Amino acid sequence: MPEPRQTLTVELGERSYPIHIGRGLLADRALLQNATAAESVMVVSNEAVAPLYLDTLKAGLAGRQVIATVLPDGEQEKRLESMLPVFDEMLVNGLGRDSAVIALGGGVIGDLAGFVAATYQRGVAFVQIPTTLLAMVDSSVGGKTGVNHPRGKNMIGAFHQPRAVVADLSVLDTLPDREMRAGMAEVIKYALLGDAAFLDWLETHLDEALAREPGVLAELVARCCRNKAAIVSADERESGQRALLNLGHTFGHAIEAARGYGDWLHGEAIAAGMCMATGMSRRLGWISPADEARATALIERAGLPTTPPADLSTARFREFMARDKKNRHGQLTLVLLKALGEAVVTTDYDDQALEATLTESAHD
Amino acid sequence: MPEPRQTLTVELGERSYPIHIGRGLLADRALLQNATAAESVMVVSNEAVAPLYLDTLKAGLAGRQVIATVLPDGEQEKRLESMLPVFDEMLVNGLGRDSAVIALGGGVIGDLAGFVAATYQRGVAFVQIPTTLLAMVDSSVGGKTGVNHPRGKNMIGAFHQPRAVVADLSVLDTLPDREMRAGMAEVIKYALLGDAAFLDWLETHLDEALAREPGVLAELVARCCRNKAAIVSADERESGQRALLNLGHTFGHAIEAARGYGDWLHGEAIAAGMCMATGMSRRLGWISPADEARATALIERAGLPTTPPADLSTARFREFMARDKKNRHGQLTLVLLKALGEAVVTTDYDDQALEATLTESAHD
Repeated sequence: MPEPRQTLTVELGERSYPIHIGRGLLADRALLQNATAAESVMVVSNEAVAPLYLDTLKAGLAGRQVIATVLPDGEQEKRLESMLPVFDEMLVNGLGRDSAVIALGGGVIGDLAGFVAATYQRGVAFVQIPTTLLAMVDSSVGGKTGVNHPRGKNMIGAFHQPRAVVADLSVLDTLPDREMRAGMAEVIKYALLGDAAFLDWLETHLDEALAREPGVLAELVARCCRNKAAIVSADERESGQRALLNLGHTFGHAIEAARGYGDWLHGEAIAAGMCMATGMSRRLGWISPADEARATALIERAGLPTTPPADLSTARFREFMARDKKNRHGQLTLVLLKALGEAVVTTDYDDQALEATLTESAHD
Repeated sequence: MPEPRQTLTVELGERSYPIHIGRGLLADRALLQNATAAESVMVVSNEAVAPLYLDTLKAGLAGRQVIATVLPDGEQEKRLESMLPVFDEMLVNGLGRDSAVIALGGGVIGDLAGFVAATYQRGVAFVQIPTTLLAMVDSSVGGKTGVNHPRGKNMIGAFHQPRAVVADLSVLDTLPDREMRAGMAEVIKYALLGDAAFLDWLETHLDEALAREPGVLAELVARCCRNKAAIVSADERESGQRALLNLGHTFGHAIEAARGYGDWLHGEAIAAGMCMATGMSRRLGWISPADEARATALIERAGLPTTPPADLSTARFREFMARDKKNRHGQLTLVLLKALGEAVVTTDYDDQALEATLTESAHD
């Protein structure tokens, strides 16, 4: 019996594309041919993923010219300099504008390879094959690509939509537990920001999901992708509601930047950031202490941090948060909760609630 | 009496923008405000242009936060590494997504600053203020941005249309003669590729143009911009006819890459490249020897090279031409002339005509 599969669509007019979700997709030649018919392909991967899945993917791409660049693993690789060897390999091997770039990896690889695709010869086709839960449910969908700058995360990049996202759930079998939990932070994010029913579902199914029960994982990934696709379709370039997806990220990015990328995983920083956003929303009187406790409990059950590193001072937080891309005219924009399952993007909050959130967190 | 001005429009739907042509535009606050209302602006310029015009522009931008990055002059600066200090200054000064980048310089500065604008925080507003003839008539219009790679010209970049092009003809008063002549190569290109009447006009007015007679220059710049705008409007992303603008460029880029960027000016390489394309078209029997002589004579009258460097072998030419972005499936695409004033983009030519062109040029 064939494995069940789902295909969702990100609706973006002529840039619309499918998200395929199922097991065993990596070796599916017809599906990969449908994702990109390019005869020359650059696969970008990393040292953790390539030994496990690159050969399978190459078999799926048999008959084409396939070049692979395997980068070291980790967020610290997500910088402009890491793109140079990829460009170099593409040029040495004569890849033209009709070639494609495939990302085989997590969020770091997807963002970097996507930015390579966006800028190689002013843009070539791109396919996302996410290999982490985080990448499947969040970063591989929506066309945000880019790299970090020492002064801020994702500060250099482009919007470049993939032609297809191939979420092969079987690769999650080998995902380290810590990465699985980090991905769960973005999963919980969708529930908190806009899907209260999914919050109920998660509270019931979290343990099965962490244990990688196939049916639960398939439902979880599809639910997140549907949420993400709907938001991206409505606001491709983040002129408005797409910023809701940054729940926990303004605080979280500050944690990552202050620690130097790679110390905390992105999902871990976002988990602590969501707890801070939740706590600030409670201080503003927008949600109840019971709501805050419920959100924090779920994050804690997922094995994620609920507070930022203790040595991160209020001043450092403010310094890094001031660089957030959502800010306008120097005003700090935050994503906060009006209710569990209802986030807002706002500059209209009492700064004392922010100050209290930063101060309390710094001493937790 | 106010100086006469013209405003053309590049028609690209919601990305349409004006090209302002006239004298004294740099100090025109209302015009600059119209070009971008951003309160924070990064001006990118170079050491040749900034001492002459940066203060004037700053006066035109009075009342806003204006940061300037002044790079060394020259094609060798057009690389990824040169973008880093610009990003750094923007982040240090807290420039957000609502800021703008202004290019004050020639083609190198315009391409590089445009790529900064395309990629800073995934894209901010961009204004082109070209200060060379070449940039006014060609590179500032059309949204091609990018940098060179040691293995090929413009290999890394993006399409990012400016919000406005401000062609202040008075800055041409200080343009070195060699740069003026290099710009004339792109001017002649428009005549050869699609505007036979302009070829007649140029044969009459070339000397006045080189002597910078204001009325002649204004007409020349406007005519080129109209030609460019029409082609870009019809084919923004170069899926077809826009490649006509590459007349002489496949040969020319090979010259530039082989010499190391900066030895020959871009316009000089393109001039020799156009003579090669013209010669090859004559060998194919598409144009007459008299046509070839007429085109070559005009290029020579402009003080431009009509043959490539003698030490560039056929093999080296082919090596560099194989990397051209127009190539598909390994087939070398060329822009050739069916008549003076009528170019075609084609892979349908006798390779012996190419070989003869390369061989003869190498020994000229």
